[in-house]
Amino acid sequence: MPTERCLPPPAGLLDGALHLYPLRVHYDDTDLSGIVYHANYLKWFERARSDMLRLVGIEQRGAVDAGEGAYAVAELSIRYRAPARLDDALTIATRIARFGAASVELIQRALRSGPAGAPDLLAEARVRVGFVAPDGRPRRQPAAWRLAIAALIATKDSE
Amino acid sequence: MPTERCLPPPAGLLDGALHLYPLRVHYDDTDLSGIVYHANYLKWFERARSDMLRLVGIEQRGAVDAGEGAYAVAELSIRYRAPARLDDALTIATRIARFGAASVELIQRALRSGPAGAPDLLAEARVRVGFVAPDGRPRRQPAAWRLAIAALIATKDSE
Amino acid sequence: MPTERCLPPPAGLLDGALHLYPLRVHYDDTDLSGIVYHANYLKWFERARSDMLRLVGIEQRGAVDAGEGAYAVAELSIRYRAPARLDDALTIATRIARFGAASVELIQRALRSGPAGAPDLLAEARVRVGFVAPDGRPRRQPAAWRLAIAALIATKDSE
Amino acid sequence: MPTERCLPPPAGLLDGALHLYPLRVHYDDTDLSGIVYHANYLKWFERARSDMLRLVGIEQRGAVDAGEGAYAVAELSIRYRAPARLDDALTIATRIARFGAASVELIQRALRSGPAGAPDLLAEARVRVGFVAPDGRPRRQPAAWRLAIAALIATKDSE
Repeated sequence: MPTERCLPPPAGLLDGALHLYPLRVHYDDTDLSGIVYHANYLKWFERARSDMLRLVGIEQRGAVDAGEGAYAVAELSIRYRAPARLDDALTIATRIARFGAASVELIQRALRSGPAGAPDLLAEARVRVGFVAPDGRPRRQPAAWRLAIAALIATKDSE
Repeated sequence: MPTERCLPPPAGLLDGALHLYPLRVHYDDTDLSGIVYHANYLKWFERARSDMLRLVGIEQRGAVDAGEGAYAVAELSIRYRAPARLDDALTIATRIARFGAASVELIQRALRSGPAGAPDLLAEARVRVGFVAPDGRPRRQPAAWRLAIAALIATKDSE
Repeated sequence: MPTERCLPPPAGLLDGALHLYPLRVHYDDTDLSGIVYHANYLKWFERARSDMLRLVGIEQRGAVDAGEGAYAVAELSIRYRAPARLDDALTIATRIARFGAASVELIQRALRSGPAGAPDLLAEARVRVGFVAPDGRPRRQPAAWRLAIAALIATKDSE
Repeated sequence: MPTERCLPPPAGLLDGALHLYPLRVHYDDTDLSGIVYHANYLKWFERARSDMLRLVGIEQRGAVDAGEGAYAVAELSIRYRAPARLDDALTIATRIARFGAASVELIQRALRSGPAGAPDLLAEARVRVGFVAPDGRPRRQPAAWRLAIAALIATKDSE
C-alpha cells in the first residue's frame, strides 16, 4: 500500500517582472448559471498576488503574526469579458503598475488557453492594495518588502 | 419540546427607489488579518441586487431553469474605505444609476451604523450587470423584467 | 431622495432551548449542478451557532480580540437528505446535545417550508465544537459562557 | 516584455489506488481566529475527488451539460485534529473505501509536511457521494465511469 506523503504545493512563476499563476476552475467556483461566480476572480487575483510576494521572499503571515500589518485592497476595478467554466485551466497574469511607500497598484488578467495558441482574455482588473497596521491605519510597507518589490520591478524581462 | 418550524427569511426593503439590505458579518467573512476579506463585499452586493429584484417581482431562478438566461456582472469598480469586522451590522444601499435594454448599472454602498447616527461608509461600488443567454451572449432582459425595473426607477421616493 | 440608513441585521430566535435561524439561499451558495454546494451547509450551521451564542450574551469577537481563544469544530457528521435551491427559504434548527467544560455538542437541522406545513428536512448534522486557546490547545470555556450555556439548556421550553 | 501565456494547471497524481492532491492554504481560507475555517476542508476534499475523477478519465462537466447528472455528497463525517494556517503546504490523500452502482465511499485525509518527514494529520473524513439525476433522484453512475473507478480500485499499488 503506497505511503501517504506530501507533494509540493502548486505555485506560479516569475518571467522577468511578469508573474504567472495557473489554476483550475473548481466545482465550488461555479454557480447555478453554469459559469464562475464573479466574486471568485477576486480570490484568484489575490492568490496570484500572494504567490508573487512569496516568490520575492515576502512572508505575509509573519507580518500578521508579528502585529506589523497586512495588505488590504483599497480600490479595484474589473471588466469581465468571457465566462469561465468548470475544469477550465486558467492563468492569472500579474504586473506591477505603480509602487509607492504604502501601496502597490497592479494589473491582473485572467487568461484561458485558446485553440489557436493565443490565450483568451476572460477578465482584467486594476487593483490598488495598501499596507495597513492592525488598527486599520495606512502604514509604510516594511523596508525589506519595498526592496524586494523594487527589485522585481527592475527585473529585466527574460525575453 | 418546541416544534421545529421555519421562520420567514431575512429580506431587505424598498424605500422609494432606494433598496436597503441588512446583514451581519459572519465568521467565514473574515480572514486572519481580523477584517472582512475584500471579495465578500461583492457577494453582499449581489445578494442585495437579487433581493431588490425579488421585491419587484423578478424571479431569477425561473429564468435560469427555463433556459432564458441570467444576469452576469460585466464591469465593477469598488473603493474600500473602512474595514468591517465580525458581528458588525451592515446595510447595503442600492440605487439604479442607468438602465438599458440588456444591462443595468447600479451604485451600491456598504454602511455601518455610526455612533452619531449617520452611518459609516465602508465601501462603495459601481456595478454594471448584463443579461446573458445560456450560450454567454448578451440578450435583452425579459420584457416583464424591464417593466418592473422601469417602474422601480420611476417610483416616487417616500420622503 | 430617501436617506441611506442602516436596518437591524437578520437574527434568529430562541424558543425555549431550541434555536431557529432563518436564511435565504443565495446565488453564490449554488453550483453548476443547480443545487447548493454541500460545504455551504457547514457555514449556515456555524452562523446559527454564532447567532445562538449572541442571543445568550456570548461575544465571540471580544474573546478573540482579548487573546482568550475561540470555538473550533472538532468533529462533525452530516447527512444530506434533499437538495436546496436558489431562493429557498430555510431555517436552521439547533439544540445542544451535550455540554462539557471545554466543548459543546449540538444537533443541527436544515429545514425548508413544506407544502403541507411540516417542514422538509434537507440535512442534519451532529457537531462538536471545542474552545481552544490561540496556541491551538483545548481550554475550558470562559466561566461566564459556561453559565450562559447551562442556563440555556435549563430553559423551560415555551410549549 | 514577456508574453502572457498559460501554464499547465495544478493537479494531483495517482500512486496506485492512492490519490494525492497538493494545495496551498490561501488568505481567504482563514478566518479571524488565524486558522483555516472548518468548512473549507470540505472544498479541498471535493477538489481532490474531482481531480481523481479527471485522472481516470471521468469528465463531470460533460455529464452535467448533457443532463445526465452529477455527484452529490450524501453523507460525511470529519474529525479535525490540528489546525492549518496561511501558507501551509497541504496534501489531500484519498482512497476509495466502497463502491456501489450509485455511490462511492471515500476516506480522505488532510496532511501537512512534518519536521521529521512523516506528515502531520490535520483532518480525516469519510465521505459518501451518490450520483443523482438533475431531478435529484439517485441514479446509477454512467457505465464508463463505473468501469474507470473499478479499474482504479483494482490498480496494483506501486510499492
